[in-house]
Amino acid sequence: MPLPGRPLSIAIVGQGSMGRAHSNAYRQAPHFFDTPFTPRLKVICGRNQAGLDRMASVWGWEETATDWRQVVERKDIDVVDVAVPNALHAPIAIAAAEAGKIVFCEKPLAVSAEEGARMVAAANGVRTMVWFNYRRVPAIAFTRRLIEEGRIGEAFHYRATYLQEWGNDPSRPPGWKTDRAQAGSGVLGDLLSHSIDTALYLNGPVSEVSAMLHTFAPGRDVDDAVLALARFKNGSIGTFEAT
Amino acid sequence: MPLPGRPLSIAIVGQGSMGRAHSNAYRQAPHFFDTPFTPRLKVICGRNQAGLDRMASVWGWEETATDWRQVVERKDIDVVDVAVPNALHAPIAIAAAEAGKIVFCEKPLAVSAEEGARMVAAANGVRTMVWFNYRRVPAIAFTRRLIEEGRIGEAFHYRATYLQEWGNDPSRPPGWKTDRAQAGSGVLGDLLSHSIDTALYLNGPVSEVSAMLHTFAPGRDVDDAVLALARFKNGSIGTFEAT
Amino acid sequence: MPLPGRPLSIAIVGQGSMGRAHSNAYRQAPHFFDTPFTPRLKVICGRNQAGLDRMASVWGWEETATDWRQVVERKDIDVVDVAVPNALHAPIAIAAAEAGKIVFCEKPLAVSAEEGARMVAAANGVRTMVWFNYRRVPAIAFTRRLIEEGRIGEAFHYRATYLQEWGNDPSRPPGWKTDRAQAGSGVLGDLLSHSIDTALYLNGPVSEVSAMLHTFAPGRDVDDAVLALARFKNGSIGTFEAT
Amino acid sequence: MPLPGRPLSIAIVGQGSMGRAHSNAYRQAPHFFDTPFTPRLKVICGRNQAGLDRMASVWGWEETATDWRQVVERKDIDVVDVAVPNALHAPIAIAAAEAGKIVFCEKPLAVSAEEGARMVAAANGVRTMVWFNYRRVPAIAFTRRLIEEGRIGEAFHYRATYLQEWGNDPSRPPGWKTDRAQAGSGVLGDLLSHSIDTALYLNGPVSEVSAMLHTFAPGRDVDDAVLALARFKNGSIGTFEAT
Repeated sequence: MPLPGRPLSIAIVGQGSMGRAHSNAYRQAPHFFDTPFTPRLKVICGRNQAGLDRMASVWGWEETATDWRQVVERKDIDVVDVAVPNALHAPIAIAAAEAGKIVFCEKPLAVSAEEGARMVAAANGVRTMVWFNYRRVPAIAFTRRLIEEGRIGEAFHYRATYLQEWGNDPSRPPGWKTDRAQAGSGVLGDLLSHSIDTALYLNGPVSEVSAMLHTFAPGRDVDDAVLALARFKNGSIGTFEAT
Repeated sequence: MPLPGRPLSIAIVGQGSMGRAHSNAYRQAPHFFDTPFTPRLKVICGRNQAGLDRMASVWGWEETATDWRQVVERKDIDVVDVAVPNALHAPIAIAAAEAGKIVFCEKPLAVSAEEGARMVAAANGVRTMVWFNYRRVPAIAFTRRLIEEGRIGEAFHYRATYLQEWGNDPSRPPGWKTDRAQAGSGVLGDLLSHSIDTALYLNGPVSEVSAMLHTFAPGRDVDDAVLALARFKNGSIGTFEAT
Repeated sequence: MPLPGRPLSIAIVGQGSMGRAHSNAYRQAPHFFDTPFTPRLKVICGRNQAGLDRMASVWGWEETATDWRQVVERKDIDVVDVAVPNALHAPIAIAAAEAGKIVFCEKPLAVSAEEGARMVAAANGVRTMVWFNYRRVPAIAFTRRLIEEGRIGEAFHYRATYLQEWGNDPSRPPGWKTDRAQAGSGVLGDLLSHSIDTALYLNGPVSEVSAMLHTFAPGRDVDDAVLALARFKNGSIGTFEAT
Repeated sequence: MPLPGRPLSIAIVGQGSMGRAHSNAYRQAPHFFDTPFTPRLKVICGRNQAGLDRMASVWGWEETATDWRQVVERKDIDVVDVAVPNALHAPIAIAAAEAGKIVFCEKPLAVSAEEGARMVAAANGVRTMVWFNYRRVPAIAFTRRLIEEGRIGEAFHYRATYLQEWGNDPSRPPGWKTDRAQAGSGVLGDLLSHSIDTALYLNGPVSEVSAMLHTFAPGRDVDDAVLALARFKNGSIGTFEAT
């Protein structure tokens, strides 16, 4: 059974489903693992005060806030967790990094390669993490270990399919995920980013890629399906599909 | 997002893996569901003080105790949760019921039908629950709903297999689960009880049964495999296997 | 590629689906395997002359006949293949064996253990085969070889399910298979016989058995489902289901 | 049971595994289907006389021949079946078509689009078939029927994987299939051609495609894996993989 670690004060910016998922993660990790740090749920920041109050009550956030610019400057905060729509990742993460905070940022990191490069530059010298949580799924972590121990032979083919069914469901209310201005891309950033990270994690760098974006839903301005072919540096080839 | 319910003070007797699983359940339920009650983790009772202290620290139990007879009499306790080896279920649950407590008891309920009947008699007038948690697995709950709504036709065959691989593993330390004096039975009570409860829940009462117990591990005094055939009242027939 | 073997003259009694399946087997075996004998399709015997003519034309049977008693006595016949309803297996097979023929008999061998014992006694000294064709399915033959070579460890559990869906289909015309007088049993002889033979072939003798017959279709006088539990001599236990 | 149809005299050029598969097809089709024609196995043509004699003996070819140019001119031949290495498809098929024969040709049709176009031009006015046998696999034929009857809704994603494991097996003797001069391509023509034909058959024309050839085996001059992405005219998108 785990021992309590040193406290680590968290400020989360975002009160949606990822705000909830991260709250759960902070609460549950010390229940099951011996972690060097114990998260302290210091402040949750968003724009909907009633929702913030509910989040604070259910998950035990000590304070609420509505101005992320003030939050990222607070001396009593160790970690800034960026769990907002994609287009806001860069300004918040860069400000937090410049304030010397540890930065946890949701995926996709940025809405363009240029923006991502600026974030990486700003993060120079601070600890950072992108929430590619699949790396900690036991089956994937175990596969990684088998690969590192050389217990899996030469890879020939890599296949990744991330299939969800709601992308084209007209009965779902539109949200920021299908709004190009807020999301930058659709399934490409939302789902394929996980598949790509897992591929890099397990099968190493990609040397060549060919991809196809597709939008099924009429009038939607982001992709709701993406296919890709890749040649990996280790000599294997792969297919990717997310929808 | 859930609203907090009325507090319900819990005393748990048991500090093993089910003690931990129930602690997690009490903590997590109000995070995800709108429950009329909010569990208050009042007291955890067991025989290993160091372990009790760790449980209290990790899961937030307010107090620890080592004498279950005192615990079940406490005025400030609403629920007694019995999470100890099977042979102790009856004395604790009966005492708790006689003290007017709500009783949650781990499965298998008892180590004999006679003992179970005494528990049922003692529980007359108090609220009780046996921890048949599979009833709340989404797939099973959904199947039950489909059946209740008449959306599944006539049942012909029912099949249940509960297959674990550790029963016969000589590298595992012996525990109370393979000691007849403490466990009453082996896989029959530990695994098949779940399968039977789920079958009764989904497919209704059984009218005829034929079963076979088997022990693979040399020298073990409880079963480590059980097979059964059943005829259900609804006209279907079923096979059960647990190992 | 196979070489032709010595000719073996076949007389088949039966012109139904097994008559067709065996005709195909006799035609195809020498196309793919180096067999010491090449089947010669000498005579097909049944009661429907038009059907016999069609069988002869399609599969190349040299002659047709309607009296099996004459056929089994013919000097120019090496093999009598019994592919008729179960209740006729015994008289034809016994007559053929007494005439010194090689006897191939469809399963189930007999409609009672007593009848089967008489067939076995009559077959003393002649070559015989029951059409348990699953023994030659590549996956089963390969499994048998792995077992014989000791490459599969200790067996704990054996599971056999033979699931067909037509047994209870009211739209199918009734046939001899659901008539107790002709078939002796239903699914027990028709399907479970295969499962039992395969179990004996792969997992060895059974020391204890418990079984349950069931009839779903109203008014049917044979079983349309059968469940069984078994303890094998090798220390494993098994479940069987056929329907 | 099938009725015999009008005789159709077949000449096959090729005595390898496809020669054998087609011999089997000609023998078996009239055993199971009511066909308007009954194949007559007239002549098998190849370069290995001993092998031709064995094929004639096992499958019942009436004659053997070693010069395909004479065979395709014979007046008593209705069908010329081209079952030779890919680079020979065009000369034989064109000669047969010019002689007015029905032409059955193995896939891939040709080793280049230009060659294929010449074959199509030559075949003007004669009946032809490419051996895309998967169209007759019951599951695919049934799927096609469901689609034609409008019982499958709008297609979003199409996925085809044709995975064999021998392509890279160094223990297999090299054959014409891995020799560019004889085969034209590797897996592309050998396996992916089937997947593409099935896709066109079930999901209709392709409007855009992106593909990647790969060779794992060192020193091989044909591809042993191929990946492709496609956009279909019906609005769906697809992935293809063959290896």
